[in-house]
Amino acid sequence: MKSGAIVTPWEVKGDIDYEKLIREFGVVPLKELPKVFNDNLLFRRKIIFAHRDIQNILEAIKTQKKFVVMTGLMPTGKFHLGHMLIVSQLIFYQKLGAKIYIAIADIEAYNARGQSLEESRKIAIEQYLTNYISLGLKLSNCEIYFQSERSKDAEKSNAYYRLQNLLAKYATFNEFRAVYGEISPGKMVSSLLQASDMLHPQLPEFEGTCPVVIPVGIDQDPHIRLARDISQHIKDFKFNQISSTYNLFMPGLGGGKMSSSDLNSFIALTDSSKEVETKIKKYAFSGGRDTLEEHRKKGGNPDVDVSFKYLQFFFEPDDKKLQKIHDDYKSGKMLTSELKEILIKKINVFLREHQKNREKAKKEIGKFLLR
Amino acid sequence: MKSGAIVTPWEVKGDIDYEKLIREFGVVPLKELPKVFNDNLLFRRKIIFAHRDIQNILEAIKTQKKFVVMTGLMPTGKFHLGHMLIVSQLIFYQKLGAKIYIAIADIEAYNARGQSLEESRKIAIEQYLTNYISLGLKLSNCEIYFQSERSKDAEKSNAYYRLQNLLAKYATFNEFRAVYGEISPGKMVSSLLQASDMLHPQLPEFEGTCPVVIPVGIDQDPHIRLARDISQHIKDFKFNQISSTYNLFMPGLGGGKMSSSDLNSFIALTDSSKEVETKIKKYAFSGGRDTLEEHRKKGGNPDVDVSFKYLQFFFEPDDKKLQKIHDDYKSGKMLTSELKEILIKKINVFLREHQKNREKAKKEIGKFLLR
Repeated sequence: MKSGAIVTPWEVKGDIDYEKLIREFGVVPLKELPKVFNDNLLFRRKIIFAHRDIQNILEAIKTQKKFVVMTGLMPTGKFHLGHMLIVSQLIFYQKLGAKIYIAIADIEAYNARGQSLEESRKIAIEQYLTNYISLGLKLSNCEIYFQSERSKDAEKSNAYYRLQNLLAKYATFNEFRAVYGEISPGKMVSSLLQASDMLHPQLPEFEGTCPVVIPVGIDQDPHIRLARDISQHIKDFKFNQISSTYNLFMPGLGGGKMSSSDLNSFIALTDSSKEVETKIKKYAFSGGRDTLEEHRKKGGNPDVDVSFKYLQFFFEPDDKKLQKIHDDYKSGKMLTSELKEILIKKINVFLREHQKNREKAKKEIGKFLLR
Repeated sequence: MKSGAIVTPWEVKGDIDYEKLIREFGVVPLKELPKVFNDNLLFRRKIIFAHRDIQNILEAIKTQKKFVVMTGLMPTGKFHLGHMLIVSQLIFYQKLGAKIYIAIADIEAYNARGQSLEESRKIAIEQYLTNYISLGLKLSNCEIYFQSERSKDAEKSNAYYRLQNLLAKYATFNEFRAVYGEISPGKMVSSLLQASDMLHPQLPEFEGTCPVVIPVGIDQDPHIRLARDISQHIKDFKFNQISSTYNLFMPGLGGGKMSSSDLNSFIALTDSSKEVETKIKKYAFSGGRDTLEEHRKKGGNPDVDVSFKYLQFFFEPDDKKLQKIHDDYKSGKMLTSELKEILIKKINVFLREHQKNREKAKKEIGKFLLR
């Protein structure tokens, strides 16, 4: 990592050297993926850049065997562009036949942040699940659950919490420190429940032994390592090793980490066109030069420009068009204001459609949760 | 405590000064109980000698309100005479109308002792529950469950494990140390599950807010303190403070703590007449003198004599007869061999009847667990 950069589950800051992270964390760079992966912008552009044991998933896709994609969501703050990274992956895998598991971490929100279960439920439904569905996630072949209430089927609930309790025997305090920095009983228990989230799809009460992949940001790797480590020590179950993929951080508007707790760092999927315009114009960190003359002469730097990155992550799916924007900006032909206009337009077209979908999604999720 | 005596949940040794324990632990000596309590040998003879908040239970009995007696059993080793102390109390309270909760601590046996859930299940049924029923516990108005599988009703299971997870926020590492000496993630999690065992009867999914009493040996008080403390800090539920009662230790044959792991320290309820005879004659610590002449002249000491104590704890319910044995032994009129003969006969009469009951109990528990 470049000097001063920090990447842990509870803090990400500084200039991140992903090459170094790959070495330090012991994850494997992604390469030579099947065509269906390369059709996906996130894989093709190496926004998803590393993995552990992805071969198990590739094999399952190739042989049309069952596999699971597992993710968790912490129901705090607003659903923003950064959250779309994981959701797009869920939708991508769902189309390939994956069963999707989504854990709503209301126990973690309670223990680590003091948020009530009721508040978590409200935020999870209104902010997260409604947007997941609007973005295209189908509720069929999907297990969505609250950590505080695993299932309406007692055998499933018992199996899930039993696993949490048994996993405790195989964990050490040091592993929890790696996940949370400083530990408390509440955080420890949440961490074990999260390990059960990751592993329980393989229990006989759920899918049985099958490949499971967990897409995460690279800062979340300690959670993955904990679950992978424990899963191979517990004697009572034979778990397939969990696979994982790692994506780059989507930068916040200011260039740092996008964070729900910093209102000016993100664009929410419920923001109005006007808010989008204001936020991009006012806060989006620019790779442009200080003056028009200098920009025309020396060109901008798309590699640090947040607006360009947003086009790259989501909003300009056409590689050739993206390349042209890159080159024009770099040469000075395209101004920062022009680049920002392109992005504002793209986001607002997307959000108009998305916000229409939200109304339908609200009804769907309402029905789903009543089951 | 007398010098060198240790009383913690994981170690009891030395000469125990109960007066000092009462002061140190902050429990309250039991006195002025209603007649129905004094009809019970354990209360009358101050074998159950202290309490916390017993008045809530006395009030419930007086006004014929619902109350719960909660206990846990660790399914290891053989069921012995010492275990009967708690069971007699359950039966006593059950006759007074209490609902009985029995937690089988298979998760704790797994995490703290490495015993498999299957092994725990087998021991719990064959050794513990079968004896509970043979001793007179009725299965109606009784909730018996395994920690690893709380209920066949998902709402109940979710509520029980949810409580375990939420309680974690209100516990500190120091409290766990008081319960276990040294802590590990496995022990911590077991301790939280035990706190949920003690508190969950009051959840709306179970009995709702009502008085709960937990009868324990005084060494188990740190567990009680942990649950009592957390219960008053958690914001999401309004728990009645838990009541508890404390009984003396039933001495092992050698005079120290009766322990399942020391085969010569106890009489099991499945021992044969011959085994009982041999064990009492060979191992029961005697308050007699070294020689017949000396015993006749100076008398024995019933206060340290294990055979006398067993008569006092269970096997001579008639206070006058017990007093006569005491006086005769103390005066030297009764020899150790005679005292031991009385006990051997009493135990064997009891066990013959009990072991007959076991066959019927086995069928009952079989049916009960299939529900």
